Amino acid sequence: MSSQIYIGVDLGGTNIKVGICDEQGKLLKTLEGPTSPELGAESVLERIAQYVRQVVEESDYSWEQVAGIGAGLAGFMDIPEGFVKFSPNLQWHNVPAKKTLEALLGKQVKIDNDANVAALGEAWSGAGAGIPNVVCYTLGTGVGGGIIINGKIYQGSAGMAGELGHMSIVPDIEAIQCGCGQMGCLETVSSATGIVRMAKEAVERGERTSLALHEKIEAKHVFDDAKSGDEVALRIVNRAAYYIGRSMAALAVVINPKRFIIGGGVSKAGEILFQPIRDTFIKFTPEAAAEGVEIVAATLGNDAGVVGAAGLNLR
Amino acid sequence: MSSQIYIGVDLGGTNIKVGICDEQGKLLKTLEGPTSPELGAESVLERIAQYVRQVVEESDYSWEQVAGIGAGLAGFMDIPEGFVKFSPNLQWHNVPAKKTLEALLGKQVKIDNDANVAALGEAWSGAGAGIPNVVCYTLGTGVGGGIIINGKIYQGSAGMAGELGHMSIVPDIEAIQCGCGQMGCLETVSSATGIVRMAKEAVERGERTSLALHEKIEAKHVFDDAKSGDEVALRIVNRAAYYIGRSMAALAVVINPKRFIIGGGVSKAGEILFQPIRDTFIKFTPEAAAEGVEIVAATLGNDAGVVGAAGLNLR
Repeated sequence: MSSQIYIGVDLGGTNIKVGICDEQGKLLKTLEGPTSPELGAESVLERIAQYVRQVVEESDYSWEQVAGIGAGLAGFMDIPEGFVKFSPNLQWHNVPAKKTLEALLGKQVKIDNDANVAALGEAWSGAGAGIPNVVCYTLGTGVGGGIIINGKIYQGSAGMAGELGHMSIVPDIEAIQCGCGQMGCLETVSSATGIVRMAKEAVERGERTSLALHEKIEAKHVFDDAKSGDEVALRIVNRAAYYIGRSMAALAVVINPKRFIIGGGVSKAGEILFQPIRDTFIKFTPEAAAEGVEIVAATLGNDAGVVGAAGLNLR
Repeated sequence: MSSQIYIGVDLGGTNIKVGICDEQGKLLKTLEGPTSPELGAESVLERIAQYVRQVVEESDYSWEQVAGIGAGLAGFMDIPEGFVKFSPNLQWHNVPAKKTLEALLGKQVKIDNDANVAALGEAWSGAGAGIPNVVCYTLGTGVGGGIIINGKIYQGSAGMAGELGHMSIVPDIEAIQCGCGQMGCLETVSSATGIVRMAKEAVERGERTSLALHEKIEAKHVFDDAKSGDEVALRIVNRAAYYIGRSMAALAVVINPKRFIIGGGVSKAGEILFQPIRDTFIKFTPEAAAEGVEIVAATLGNDAGVVGAAGLNLR
C-alpha cells in the first residue's frame, strides 16, 4: 500500500486513544491506553509517541506512509505553536506538546482543542462529510463547539472562535454565572451539568416530579423522565433545547452553515432533544437563512476526536 | 501611471456613486448622478456603465488600467452569479446585473450587498485596515452587517452570513416582530427605526420626557436629548447599545474578530452610544475572547460603499 496515512491522538484525562486514518478520513485501526497524568507531562508525551509507533507497527502500513500526526486535548493553548498553556484535566502548565512530539517522532505534529478536533472529524468523514461549512456542538459536561469553514477549523483572531458554550444567551432575569465568570452562557443551561443543576433545583423547590426519586440525578434521568411524561423533566429538557436552538438561529445569520451537528453524551437523548431545538431554530431564523439547513446528530461517536486529530494535517 | 485601478459603484435608490481606487484602497476620484429607478433596470445599468467610463476618462488613468468593476446595492441576490432577485429600493426583480454590466463594459464585474461591501471598504482602507478578521455593523434605517475573514467577505452557505440585524437577541418577554417576520431581531431595537419607535412609544405612554417636544422624532433627537440628560432618551439609547453589545459578545466566541467596526448614520452619535456598547461587551464576553478586541467607529463614512465595491475584484 503506497498511500499516505494520518495519525490522530485523542488525549483525554483518563485514556489516550490513537488511530490511523486514510486520506478520506476512514478510521483504519485504533489503540488505547491509560493517560496516567500523575506521572507528568513528559511521561504522557513519551507514551503518546510509543502508542503512535505501536499502532503503525501493528498495522499493514509503514512508518514512511505517515504524513502527519495530530492531537486533540482539552485546554487553553497557542494552537499555531502547539503550546499548551493550561489543561485542567491533564494538569499541564506550559507544555510545548508539538515540539516535544515532533522531536520524539520525527514527523510533523499539530495540536488543537478537543471540541475543534471533534468538529473537524465530523466534518471530514462524519455527519458533515462533503459539506464545506458546518457548525458542531459537543454537549457533555460543558458545551463545546467547533466551526468548520471550507473544510477547515476556523480559529478566529485569538483561537476563541467556536467557543459556543460561552455565547451569553440566557436573558439577565434568569441568567446564572458560568464557570468562565460570565453570566448567562449557553453552557449554564444546555450542558449535562446545567441540566442536572436545573433538575436538582426543581427537586429542592419541592416541585412534583419523578426526578425526586433518583438518589443522584444524572442528565440521562432527566431525559428518561421527560420521555415518561414527567412535566418538570420535560420543561428542563425544553429549556436546554430552547437555548441551543436560539444560539443556532443567531449562527444562521452569522456563519450561515449548511448543517449543524450535535454530538457528545447529551446528544444521545435523541428526538426529545432534537425536535425542540429544530422548532426553536425555525421560529427564530429568517426563512432565507433557515432554508435547507439541517440539524443532525453526530455519527462518529467517540471516534470523532481521533479522526479529527488525524485530519489536522490534511485539512 | 502603469498601475492597476479598481472601480467601485455604490448603487442607491436615489444616487449612483462611482469611484476609482488604487491597489491600497485609496479613493482617487468619484462621480455622482441620479439613479432614477423609475426608468427601469436597463436604463439604470446603462447609466452606471456611462458613469464608469466617464470617471475614468476624466481621470489621469486609462481604461486599460481598469482591473475590475464592483457594485454594491441593497437587495437579495445570487452573489456568485451577480443576479439580483429583488431589490426593494430599486424595485428590481430578477435583474442579471453582473452579465449586463460585463456586456456593456467589457470588464469583469462583481456585485454584492451594500452592508457586505461597506464592511469590505472599512476592512480594506478604513477602520479595519491591516486587520484580517473584522466584523462591521451598519446602523441606519436597518442594521446591516458584514464579516471579513482573512480580508475577504465571508458569505456563508446561502449568502446569509453577516446579516447581523437579524440575530434574534431580544428576550421573548420584550421582543417585537421584525420586518423579516422573526421575533426579537437586533434591528428592532438598535436601528434608527427601532430607536424612533421606542421614543414614540415612550411619548405615547405619557412618560415625562423632552422627546415629547419634537414634532416628528428622529434618532438624532433621541441621542441629543440623552446627551442633555433626559432619562427616558438615555434609557432608549442604552437599550439600543445593550443589544449591540450582547450581539458582539456572542460574535466574540463565534467569529472572534480582532476589531468590531460600527458605521452608518446612527454611529455618528459617538461615545453616548459606544460607551454602553463597550461596557456590555466586556460584561458578557469571556476575558480570553475580549482581550485586545476593539470596538471602533467606521472612518470612511459615505465612501465605504464605493471603496468596498472597488475592492470586490481585488480581495
